[in-house]
Amino acid sequence: MEHIVIIGAIAAGTKAAAKAKRENPDLKITIFSEDEYISYSACGLPFYIGGEFADYKQLVEYTVEQFEKEMGVEVHTLHRVLSIDAEANFVKVKNLKTGEIFNQSYTKLLISTGARPFVPKIPGDEAKNIFTIRTLEDAFKIMEAMKKYKKVVIIGGGYIGIEMFEAFAKQGLDVKIVEKQSQIMPVLDEDIAASLKEMIEEKYPDSIIVSNSVKRFIANEEGNLEKIELESGMMLDADMVLLSLGVRPNSEIAKEAGIEIGPTGAIKVDKQMRTSVPNIFAAGDCAEKINLVTNEPVWIPLGSTANKEGRVVGTVLAGKEAQFDGILASAITKFFDIKISMTGIGEKTAKKLGYDFAAVNIHSKDKAGYMPDVKPICIKMLADKKTKRLLGAQGVGYGDIDKRINIVASALSAKMNVKDFINIDITYAPPFSRVIDITTTAAYALDKILEKEG
Amino acid sequence: MEHIVIIGAIAAGTKAAAKAKRENPDLKITIFSEDEYISYSACGLPFYIGGEFADYKQLVEYTVEQFEKEMGVEVHTLHRVLSIDAEANFVKVKNLKTGEIFNQSYTKLLISTGARPFVPKIPGDEAKNIFTIRTLEDAFKIMEAMKKYKKVVIIGGGYIGIEMFEAFAKQGLDVKIVEKQSQIMPVLDEDIAASLKEMIEEKYPDSIIVSNSVKRFIANEEGNLEKIELESGMMLDADMVLLSLGVRPNSEIAKEAGIEIGPTGAIKVDKQMRTSVPNIFAAGDCAEKINLVTNEPVWIPLGSTANKEGRVVGTVLAGKEAQFDGILASAITKFFDIKISMTGIGEKTAKKLGYDFAAVNIHSKDKAGYMPDVKPICIKMLADKKTKRLLGAQGVGYGDIDKRINIVASALSAKMNVKDFINIDITYAPPFSRVIDITTTAAYALDKILEKEG
Repeated sequence: MEHIVIIGAIAAGTKAAAKAKRENPDLKITIFSEDEYISYSACGLPFYIGGEFADYKQLVEYTVEQFEKEMGVEVHTLHRVLSIDAEANFVKVKNLKTGEIFNQSYTKLLISTGARPFVPKIPGDEAKNIFTIRTLEDAFKIMEAMKKYKKVVIIGGGYIGIEMFEAFAKQGLDVKIVEKQSQIMPVLDEDIAASLKEMIEEKYPDSIIVSNSVKRFIANEEGNLEKIELESGMMLDADMVLLSLGVRPNSEIAKEAGIEIGPTGAIKVDKQMRTSVPNIFAAGDCAEKINLVTNEPVWIPLGSTANKEGRVVGTVLAGKEAQFDGILASAITKFFDIKISMTGIGEKTAKKLGYDFAAVNIHSKDKAGYMPDVKPICIKMLADKKTKRLLGAQGVGYGDIDKRINIVASALSAKMNVKDFINIDITYAPPFSRVIDITTTAAYALDKILEKEG
Repeated sequence: MEHIVIIGAIAAGTKAAAKAKRENPDLKITIFSEDEYISYSACGLPFYIGGEFADYKQLVEYTVEQFEKEMGVEVHTLHRVLSIDAEANFVKVKNLKTGEIFNQSYTKLLISTGARPFVPKIPGDEAKNIFTIRTLEDAFKIMEAMKKYKKVVIIGGGYIGIEMFEAFAKQGLDVKIVEKQSQIMPVLDEDIAASLKEMIEEKYPDSIIVSNSVKRFIANEEGNLEKIELESGMMLDADMVLLSLGVRPNSEIAKEAGIEIGPTGAIKVDKQMRTSVPNIFAAGDCAEKINLVTNEPVWIPLGSTANKEGRVVGTVLAGKEAQFDGILASAITKFFDIKISMTGIGEKTAKKLGYDFAAVNIHSKDKAGYMPDVKPICIKMLADKKTKRLLGAQGVGYGDIDKRINIVASALSAKMNVKDFINIDITYAPPFSRVIDITTTAAYALDKILEKEG
């Protein structure tokens, strides 16, 4: 009889279990999770910490009890899967409450072990009050510390860094952010990141330190963090640190079982989320993805992707057809009322991959200039000079950016060229856009370059 | 020598002139407009009347002087073109200031005469304070009347009706809206219109009267409007009326010149905006368009389309290549913080055109449920059962609708089917959408129907 075992229960794992049972109620499914909580929005943690809502339970879609009852799935939390025997079809599991170790056999296995924060070894890191944020438990620890400590330094200026900056600032903490690279949000192109930095510093002057990194942490006699010395020699006062230096896929367990790991370090999967072992699947943050613009393997772990992959692999586990083609690297975040969004590839990636591309960066407004709440936005858009195809867009501003970036995402999905994009009939009314939307204006500008040069 | 004459100077006319001169500075261009103002945002008039901004000049992109100087184009306002001699290549023009009538020859002619409000003959309509809104002059008259009169009835519940409802209400007037059809916003499907009506009436109870129309206007002894009798016998107090019963294309001048008129009553044009007479073009609200979803001729006059058509015909008039393929019937409006948007076709049109379609109507939220400012939205989406292609979407709600509808517009432009749409990598972060956006949820629901039935 079919018995599906799932490792991990935050997003892809629970989604897959729910979908599989819906498609085939006869399936037996057992989930092991080393965490205490399952099926919650990890992406919501910064907003919880920022005080946007009071009860962490709002992040939780299902408790273990609800999930077991509603889905008819067995869930074991605080159970760590130690290893996979991909030939004998069983996993070795440790019950973290009792210490008991046992084997659990499966007919099909889903690895949805997620990702973990990257934490390099830094001198002095035995100091108290150095945090990472990935799980609900991490959030609880940070919130406890925030009651006492008020000077926080965030190491790493990516998505999590930006979102946690807002959260800490909203809670009245004094925040600085240190980024090793020469710009905030290294995923953005330099020009867009420069616009963003300018906007953040309007609100919080001198809060961003770029081209610098931590040399060592300095604690006081009680072992509490007191200062941070940066590589440049600069000293920062800090009684709390958040390390947000990126994440790594939890793919080791797969690697040790002989499952193929992709060039990104995440588990290689096909469009059915199948690994190199036919009855073992992987989905969510531990799995590698294909960038549909470049057709290159990438590892961009996001909640929305995990959810979609969970849905696909759940359908496949139930014996039905489904496929996940890949991603566009679409992403969005915000810092207070500044929105930052992107899809496809930017100039950095385009250069690295050897594209001959045109790029434009348009500064404009989110609505008709005479509307009282008109706000500045800028959008950068790229196209391939040879194929004339759009390659990506990035935007930042106080106005509605995500709307615009999603129009481009849809266009990238359809492999549109610049002239196709110009022809999209985008809605217009003065409270929503200029008569010609900034995205169309950007496409006009790209078209001009492509016409001139081609 | 090439001499281009343009009739009309609000949107398409001025855009075409500017673009043509930019592409070919040697062109001689003369514009005639019977209005006093040129190159302004007619779509912005309701927001001006509503007091969103104080100076009408903010609506004006160029004054006549600016436009003449910057573009090197001759502009004659308060000049009505009476007729076109399409064989002898001249127009007969009347100077409305002096009464003088003269002929002006051209090598190429652009008709951008726009549209006018539809005003049926209604008993008692000689009463004072019955208005339409189309031009700046109309706005001035309404604003003058608003100083004295406070009870306004809007006849016609389409875009203009809704926008003017907000404008009047913002200015403290007591507003009722009367719509002949059984729903507000007849362009919407019934279910979406019902959601909209409910939302409007939460704010303004009993403000919407449907399935009813004006029988007669009743004036007092001074000739000022006092009451309106509806067909049902209902009497409404009113000292002001706005007729917003739709618009008609100003295509008569073309028809009289022997230029082909399309089935919609607007001027038939090809992709270069050329009419049936090779050296005569038409663009903007007076020109017919092709709906790219149905490939049927339609007449949907919008500022954004006029602008794009102006750009295309300007390029063509300058002897270069450009084309305007058509529209998706994308549109948006708002009523206070309620947004209403659509693209492609709805159930009404799909039925009329004989499509075998699936439709879903999803009620959900605009962002993660735990975000404090989460708002309800609903989106209806249609797909063709045979081709699986998306046909259109309509949405209404307090949350961000236009973002979502534009994703669908982009998809319709690419002729995506439902599975293609599901694969779009839409940006996700809790402040911007649920982990699976409502548009994807709608596509999942459509896919389920299509799978089951096909």
